[in-house]
Amino acid sequence: MKNFISLADVSDPKALVQEAIQLKKNPFADKALGKNKTIGLLFFNSSLRTRLSTQKAAQNLGMEVMVMNVNQDSWGLEMMDGVVMNGDKAEHVKEAAAVIGQYCDIIAVRSFAELKDRNADYQEIVINKFKQYAGVPIVNLESATRHPLQSLADCITIEEYKTKPRPKVVLTWAPHFKSLPQAVANSFSEWMNVWDVDFVVTHPEGYDLAPEFVGNAQVVYNQREAFEGADFIYTKNWSSYKDYGKVLTQNPDWMITMDKMRLTNNGKFMHCLPVRRNLKVTDEVLDSPQSIVIPQAGNRVWSAQVVLKQILSGL
Amino acid sequence: MKNFISLADVSDPKALVQEAIQLKKNPFADKALGKNKTIGLLFFNSSLRTRLSTQKAAQNLGMEVMVMNVNQDSWGLEMMDGVVMNGDKAEHVKEAAAVIGQYCDIIAVRSFAELKDRNADYQEIVINKFKQYAGVPIVNLESATRHPLQSLADCITIEEYKTKPRPKVVLTWAPHFKSLPQAVANSFSEWMNVWDVDFVVTHPEGYDLAPEFVGNAQVVYNQREAFEGADFIYTKNWSSYKDYGKVLTQNPDWMITMDKMRLTNNGKFMHCLPVRRNLKVTDEVLDSPQSIVIPQAGNRVWSAQVVLKQILSGL
Amino acid sequence: MKNFISLADVSDPKALVQEAIQLKKNPFADKALGKNKTIGLLFFNSSLRTRLSTQKAAQNLGMEVMVMNVNQDSWGLEMMDGVVMNGDKAEHVKEAAAVIGQYCDIIAVRSFAELKDRNADYQEIVINKFKQYAGVPIVNLESATRHPLQSLADCITIEEYKTKPRPKVVLTWAPHFKSLPQAVANSFSEWMNVWDVDFVVTHPEGYDLAPEFVGNAQVVYNQREAFEGADFIYTKNWSSYKDYGKVLTQNPDWMITMDKMRLTNNGKFMHCLPVRRNLKVTDEVLDSPQSIVIPQAGNRVWSAQVVLKQILSGL
Repeated sequence: MKNFISLADVSDPKALVQEAIQLKKNPFADKALGKNKTIGLLFFNSSLRTRLSTQKAAQNLGMEVMVMNVNQDSWGLEMMDGVVMNGDKAEHVKEAAAVIGQYCDIIAVRSFAELKDRNADYQEIVINKFKQYAGVPIVNLESATRHPLQSLADCITIEEYKTKPRPKVVLTWAPHFKSLPQAVANSFSEWMNVWDVDFVVTHPEGYDLAPEFVGNAQVVYNQREAFEGADFIYTKNWSSYKDYGKVLTQNPDWMITMDKMRLTNNGKFMHCLPVRRNLKVTDEVLDSPQSIVIPQAGNRVWSAQVVLKQILSGL
Repeated sequence: MKNFISLADVSDPKALVQEAIQLKKNPFADKALGKNKTIGLLFFNSSLRTRLSTQKAAQNLGMEVMVMNVNQDSWGLEMMDGVVMNGDKAEHVKEAAAVIGQYCDIIAVRSFAELKDRNADYQEIVINKFKQYAGVPIVNLESATRHPLQSLADCITIEEYKTKPRPKVVLTWAPHFKSLPQAVANSFSEWMNVWDVDFVVTHPEGYDLAPEFVGNAQVVYNQREAFEGADFIYTKNWSSYKDYGKVLTQNPDWMITMDKMRLTNNGKFMHCLPVRRNLKVTDEVLDSPQSIVIPQAGNRVWSAQVVLKQILSGL
Repeated sequence: MKNFISLADVSDPKALVQEAIQLKKNPFADKALGKNKTIGLLFFNSSLRTRLSTQKAAQNLGMEVMVMNVNQDSWGLEMMDGVVMNGDKAEHVKEAAAVIGQYCDIIAVRSFAELKDRNADYQEIVINKFKQYAGVPIVNLESATRHPLQSLADCITIEEYKTKPRPKVVLTWAPHFKSLPQAVANSFSEWMNVWDVDFVVTHPEGYDLAPEFVGNAQVVYNQREAFEGADFIYTKNWSSYKDYGKVLTQNPDWMITMDKMRLTNNGKFMHCLPVRRNLKVTDEVLDSPQSIVIPQAGNRVWSAQVVLKQILSGL
């Protein structure tokens, strides 16, 4: 693997998941692989799971880790070409990426969607600029439109918890008062489209994801109908793609409740976290045995570790 | 040792201090113990000594360290149960603690008193929630009411510097314009109550510590009287427990001066640091040979290291 | 080497550069040297290159690294003696430096000029206080008046790229709207004064550097004249030393362009970075083969590593 920016960088996603499940049994077996190798973790945005699980994964592989909160620790970065840099951005990504590439064998970047200009976000300017200029492999720690380390962890989790060869997986929108990116939902859809699952997406009208991400998913605007017989309920809020970045509704009827979970086939509740309790999902669901959000988050280590292992093997 | 949240977690405090003193002679002897073990240091508040000494201790034991400033690096955490999370806290401690427990073998947490609601602070909500949900041992890096790694370092220091089997130790309040927690004073009192010392607490009226922390200490409202014949002067400011969180006086007569130190038995000056010079104590005292604040701070490494060693041994 | 605060700490600068060039060929050869040694990197200001390259250098030498953003992670530090500390600084550098010296074998400090009081800045209060109180070697990560790790990397770069025994090196001022320190320009001048180069400094009138740093450089107020036949163009903005901290002009005629580069002897373009594109230098120059800013930044690792190696060898 050369980079891990999207599913397209993975030649065999199912083999990758199986390798992650194997590696989980013996986390330190590849500790020699990362010896004298350094990963730089660059955060333009907040992070808990991604920050810690990727560090942990790199350390399991024997790597050195350097973490930088770009805007707090360093300089504001200009992403646009050709501008006269007389504003608040002191450094251009051309230099920053190339310089960090001098110090790191792998660079991992988190940079959320700004949700102002759809074209800009969907061009994935930040992560692509890093790819273009760093000269070393790039790992996506959630970019404007995708969060593939999360999706890979989700696939590992589904493989571990599924009780039939082809489970029904439902991605459901849930209410939130803030404008949130589509990245997790996009990425999850992208991966589910190549997975052995019956994949259903449910959300209020106006919240359709971009066609290239929905793919062949069945889209249902009636949440209860979508939940029927589901093996996995994957919950997430996102803002509108069509009316870009807008919160069109906060309808509390879309919150996940035990009542709705009873429509499923004893379905497992998944969420990438952080999750706002009693806004997107009730305490009762999260605290029930059907919730697998903690082992799902735990799988972020193996998701990152298998990706770093693959990249290190190719250095 | 399973956790290190308060003195109650230590079966034999004196043996622990002796072990710390031994370990100081050979800091890297247990480097294999922490191999492939990770500690997460979580800071809800500023830290210098605790941050660096605990990192150093963990590294001496061969551990990997992940440091996170929770509010800057990650998401605001909701601590209360049952609330609808529609405010500024994006994640519940139930998830955060459990998830970090997936990535770390030990979690250490700093979360100061808020000094608004005495009941809330004295229930030790934050550290107890981490203990309840993390599923791994918890170390207290200063909680609302206690700072036991500091107290343990203080005991090491007293053992090293005492010149008689049963020294007189005075905990004295000193003036400050800010409202500060009682944690260091509480914790020091708690440990001194089980130590072979004559323990005296002196402060202006209205500054009495909680009875469960004062214990059998002799409380004297006349600072000069308290200082007479003292072997150790432990200085700290705290806000009122009774009139909770209030600064009742900033009376400069309570500042520690050389004049007062002369009342002691060539007493050693101790302070947990940071200390505001010429507000709580004069330059003259801090720069005198009687001040042992720097080796006292140095002992924070051995305090943390002996605790982590004990916890690692039990994993 | 005992400290690395300025050129004066280096007994043989040319041998140091040659050692750095050797070490670059075998970065991990001295990994045993830093075993069980800890470096603390303290930042009072933002940093990208210095932060990451010094970490990387220390890790190459097998050291443990602890990074602290002083003002964000810890307490505001009082630098002045004798003051009553009743303001916003909670700790005195006397304690902070001595305490960090208890936890670290080497302390590296970044603290920029404040550009308000020339005497204060040129006394180098912060780094000198650390040297005075830490009790361990101090490394300068850019102080008020100098940035010697940068200058050392610059010398390495000049040695690598020079095409004649005695190249012509031009330090040129370039326009900027902010008031910036003289540290990089001072330090570069200081090192060039002892190097085998023809050293020319060019800037608008009023921007003369302090005499102790200019040394024997030829000062030319006509930029085009200065550029003629130059082998290296080292670009930097700085505020006025004479009219201290002032921006006297933002004259865009001083921006580095391809047109000016054509006056040189196919001169290499250098800059310490970050650089504001199209304000100080055009895209065309930075993106041309004459620009060596990226390998120059890459040399920051070897600059830091050779310094740390020398200091470790003397511990």
